[in-house]
Amino acid sequence: MTVTIIGLGLIGGSLALDLRARRFTDRIIGVDKNPLHWDQAMEKGIVDEVMKLHSGIQEADLIVLAIPVDGIKELLPLILDYVTHQTVTDMGSSKLEIIESVRNHPKRGNYVPSHPMAGTEFSGPEAAVTGLFAKKVGIICDMADSSPKALETITNMYMAVNMRLVFMNAREHDSHAAYVSHISHLTSFALALTVLDKEKNEKNIFNLASGGFDSTARLAASSASMWVPIFSQNRENVIEVMDTYIKKMTEFKDAIAEGNEKRVEELIQEANIIQKTLTQFA
Amino acid sequence: MTVTIIGLGLIGGSLALDLRARRFTDRIIGVDKNPLHWDQAMEKGIVDEVMKLHSGIQEADLIVLAIPVDGIKELLPLILDYVTHQTVTDMGSSKLEIIESVRNHPKRGNYVPSHPMAGTEFSGPEAAVTGLFAKKVGIICDMADSSPKALETITNMYMAVNMRLVFMNAREHDSHAAYVSHISHLTSFALALTVLDKEKNEKNIFNLASGGFDSTARLAASSASMWVPIFSQNRENVIEVMDTYIKKMTEFKDAIAEGNEKRVEELIQEANIIQKTLTQFA
Repeated sequence: MTVTIIGLGLIGGSLALDLRARRFTDRIIGVDKNPLHWDQAMEKGIVDEVMKLHSGIQEADLIVLAIPVDGIKELLPLILDYVTHQTVTDMGSSKLEIIESVRNHPKRGNYVPSHPMAGTEFSGPEAAVTGLFAKKVGIICDMADSSPKALETITNMYMAVNMRLVFMNAREHDSHAAYVSHISHLTSFALALTVLDKEKNEKNIFNLASGGFDSTARLAASSASMWVPIFSQNRENVIEVMDTYIKKMTEFKDAIAEGNEKRVEELIQEANIIQKTLTQFA
Repeated sequence: MTVTIIGLGLIGGSLALDLRARRFTDRIIGVDKNPLHWDQAMEKGIVDEVMKLHSGIQEADLIVLAIPVDGIKELLPLILDYVTHQTVTDMGSSKLEIIESVRNHPKRGNYVPSHPMAGTEFSGPEAAVTGLFAKKVGIICDMADSSPKALETITNMYMAVNMRLVFMNAREHDSHAAYVSHISHLTSFALALTVLDKEKNEKNIFNLASGGFDSTARLAASSASMWVPIFSQNRENVIEVMDTYIKKMTEFKDAIAEGNEKRVEELIQEANIIQKTLTQFA
């Protein structure tokens, strides 16, 4: 099977490395609008060849869109226009707007919307690593709208990189993703902005960075080109979760300001439950 | 040198393991108000003997307070009352109120206020690990108020566990600690509360937990008994940083709500700087 990966960054590059290692494919074609990525991806063994979009589609059995969600929304309808037998998937972190863009497309059945919940704060072909997806959760949305053959191909692809698959509709996905992924990035960005606002002396930031700040602020390195369109496409859910978050933070602040230790204790103990919930299923 | 460690949890226990391994001490006495910790600490080889507070002080050359900051503030003056030649340090995450409690104590010189910026979200003797402090930053406050001998002992102790030492006054410490450690815990607690508020179905929390949520919410497992008194003792700085944080988060939310992608991009790119700052000195 020939796989064409559009977008040779962290996600597309890591997928390529694992698909080859697990012998899911014997030929990987790369498409990327950034010419700097072409050589990097070839040298790192991510792809066998680099092509223009149109040839990449023609040569492929499976086309994977691993670019920011604004790019996916723009390209996906054009790609389906050219598709004959090919299966297409995207790996975007918001799903509803993307799926809407091809709702009535005659080749809608060839397309399987998906979202592998895996990543790091880094980007580009240099950031690609093997094993990125292993044991993480991959989400496939609106499965009834994809053809059985396309579904089977994408299911096999994610199984090959050792993901655990979950099926849900796009509306559910976008709401959950806002709560457990998008808000995490927003809290990291806001934390970084807060600290930068205060600590003009860089040495101090580093000196005190071992107190839990590093893990909490890790995601603040995530790229704007990826996240701006996610927040736009998932605006309604993101705003809802930010409202709840600001409310919770304000509740905490008021309890501390009032010296209400009993209430602060209750809030922390309630928050502690999340970790039990997470480890319980790990 | 005989070291008495008061509080055999994550911090006290981890310190004991490393001090013994590096041959800083040949005898470690443990004091803990929780009898369950006595056997755990003995079995894990954290301490050689367990004693009541008074005997633990008498037998010691060095006394380390590794309990929550409300307990430190209560015990420290009483311990200094009994001290003759012993050096005393505490490992609390807030410093000003603790130092105030012994400002005019005749044995103030025997005491060195410190804060090792290291930890995990776990607690108790079972959570103690070797190497917890290695390459992390240890802070020593108000050094001019400690005797040279006491300072030398504490400096050697932290060097023995491979910390990098930084000296600053207590007011500076409490302000910086609020910005890079205390707020990180608050953002994690608030994140956990936000998600718990939404996701009543535990399975969903787990399913989507690979999208960055795990690292950001890790600190939400931190214990109330440790953090409630820190937020109380460092109230003024904590409130200031929470105000700034809520302001930054609201700025983000407004930009997303307005569909102002240019502004969202600017905010993310500004936040990205933090990671460069952190890695630059790592």
